[in-house]
Amino acid sequence: MLRNAFLPWAAKQYFLYIVFMASPIRIGIVTVSDRASRGVYQDLGGPAIRDCLTEILSCAWEPLPRVIPDERPLIETTLKDLCDQEHCCLVVTTGGTGPARRDVTPEATEAVCDKLLDGFGELMRSVSLKFVPTAILSRQIAGIRGQALIVNLPGKPSAIRDCLLAVFPAIPYCIDLLEGPYLTTHDSVVKAFRPKSS
Amino acid sequence: MLRNAFLPWAAKQYFLYIVFMASPIRIGIVTVSDRASRGVYQDLGGPAIRDCLTEILSCAWEPLPRVIPDERPLIETTLKDLCDQEHCCLVVTTGGTGPARRDVTPEATEAVCDKLLDGFGELMRSVSLKFVPTAILSRQIAGIRGQALIVNLPGKPSAIRDCLLAVFPAIPYCIDLLEGPYLTTHDSVVKAFRPKSS
Amino acid sequence: MLRNAFLPWAAKQYFLYIVFMASPIRIGIVTVSDRASRGVYQDLGGPAIRDCLTEILSCAWEPLPRVIPDERPLIETTLKDLCDQEHCCLVVTTGGTGPARRDVTPEATEAVCDKLLDGFGELMRSVSLKFVPTAILSRQIAGIRGQALIVNLPGKPSAIRDCLLAVFPAIPYCIDLLEGPYLTTHDSVVKAFRPKSS
Repeated sequence: MLRNAFLPWAAKQYFLYIVFMASPIRIGIVTVSDRASRGVYQDLGGPAIRDCLTEILSCAWEPLPRVIPDERPLIETTLKDLCDQEHCCLVVTTGGTGPARRDVTPEATEAVCDKLLDGFGELMRSVSLKFVPTAILSRQIAGIRGQALIVNLPGKPSAIRDCLLAVFPAIPYCIDLLEGPYLTTHDSVVKAFRPKSS
Repeated sequence: MLRNAFLPWAAKQYFLYIVFMASPIRIGIVTVSDRASRGVYQDLGGPAIRDCLTEILSCAWEPLPRVIPDERPLIETTLKDLCDQEHCCLVVTTGGTGPARRDVTPEATEAVCDKLLDGFGELMRSVSLKFVPTAILSRQIAGIRGQALIVNLPGKPSAIRDCLLAVFPAIPYCIDLLEGPYLTTHDSVVKAFRPKSS
Repeated sequence: MLRNAFLPWAAKQYFLYIVFMASPIRIGIVTVSDRASRGVYQDLGGPAIRDCLTEILSCAWEPLPRVIPDERPLIETTLKDLCDQEHCCLVVTTGGTGPARRDVTPEATEAVCDKLLDGFGELMRSVSLKFVPTAILSRQIAGIRGQALIVNLPGKPSAIRDCLLAVFPAIPYCIDLLEGPYLTTHDSVVKAFRPKSS
């Protein structure tokens, strides 16, 4: 009797364990910069995002870093690949959100997203505005592609941290709503908020 | 002399009275929810909007409630019907504004609107952000269809009230600009603002 | 030796001087108003913008004023002409940003822009919201066309000043990023911000 009940249970647990191990929490980190991608300039944005996420997250996660030039088709391909093939639940970008001619990260992000979440850009700009009046030149957006959340961050390491800390409390619940993995955070850094009724 | 002047005046007054009685202020209240529309779940959002509008408005008005599933074509048809056939001057929705796959209320709203008023979404998110950091996940928008103002409100009754009280001071003047009926409010609840110069 | 080095240098300086004199800083000021364009109503918005820019800017500049009706094709043609033919680095509009049927300035602006800068509208609405709750009815946007920045301002002179002072700290750097002329401001009125690293 016990054995009959136990074996399927153990098999199921083992199966869940395999699935879990095969699919840890994966986060794409995309540096969009002509100079960084040519090696003329050291990529500071990507490592800054990685450090900040390490500080925030208390769950195991795997970074998938990419460094690419400010070319819209390439940005779109990279975002699609990270969401669809690499199964990232979150993809963050840095760079290419200003008003200059070569800045096309928001255009590429919008093109690959099913839905846009205007509140991210609004909050990030209002936070940056406390430090620099040029925050209004940032065209940062965020959106959903399939089961992944894509968020554009600024180019500068200090601004990356300010923006990521500002929006992160809402990210774990957003990923829950997309039926993605369960992200946990270090409460002393970022307190993830999940409404009780949901 | 008096009779000659009085009769046309009385006829005009009577005509205006008839027109007024035949077209009271009509407000569409649309609950967008798969579960509420199947009766699995009691609609709390629609009644919360109705209660809040009763508290706000000092003029006579008629609610036109609808409860429909999260289906974009059906939401669009319902909004069009309330604006074009039912001659509502205001249509408020609740539900379907989050990032989940089934949430399509903003897409349907945008599709039927001639103009969008970004300030409504910005203000509602900034108000909700004082209570919950997940306010940035809300994609609430507002816009104009013909002579009607359409406003997306959140799904939760408490958040509905916060958002409606925040944006309502601007709604009567907006409806004036659309050449709709003259809405009046209880000043102790919401003080409608109409610029003096206009 | 000295003469050999000096002559090309002097020639270059002279050339730069000629180019500079031939292309001073030009700013388009577009009043969009059916009544003002017919002369039924005095244009107050255009002169208010001009006065405010005179107060802000410490560099030499030339205003290019236009007064046109609320006709979308005409607004688009005017904006294109000021950016492409007249080589304005900045074009500001007043009027036509409300929810009424004839208000089409934001639609025309969006149609001629390569990129939109949502932060301008957000900041202008949040500033106006401190004075009037109807600020959320304003659909003001800003965007880039080629090397020019286009900014929609409100219709009322007092609101024009509030909005222009709020966004101007970011405008000189924005024009730098578009490789336009170097704008300088009177610090006591508006302190232009240029990030040190750039």
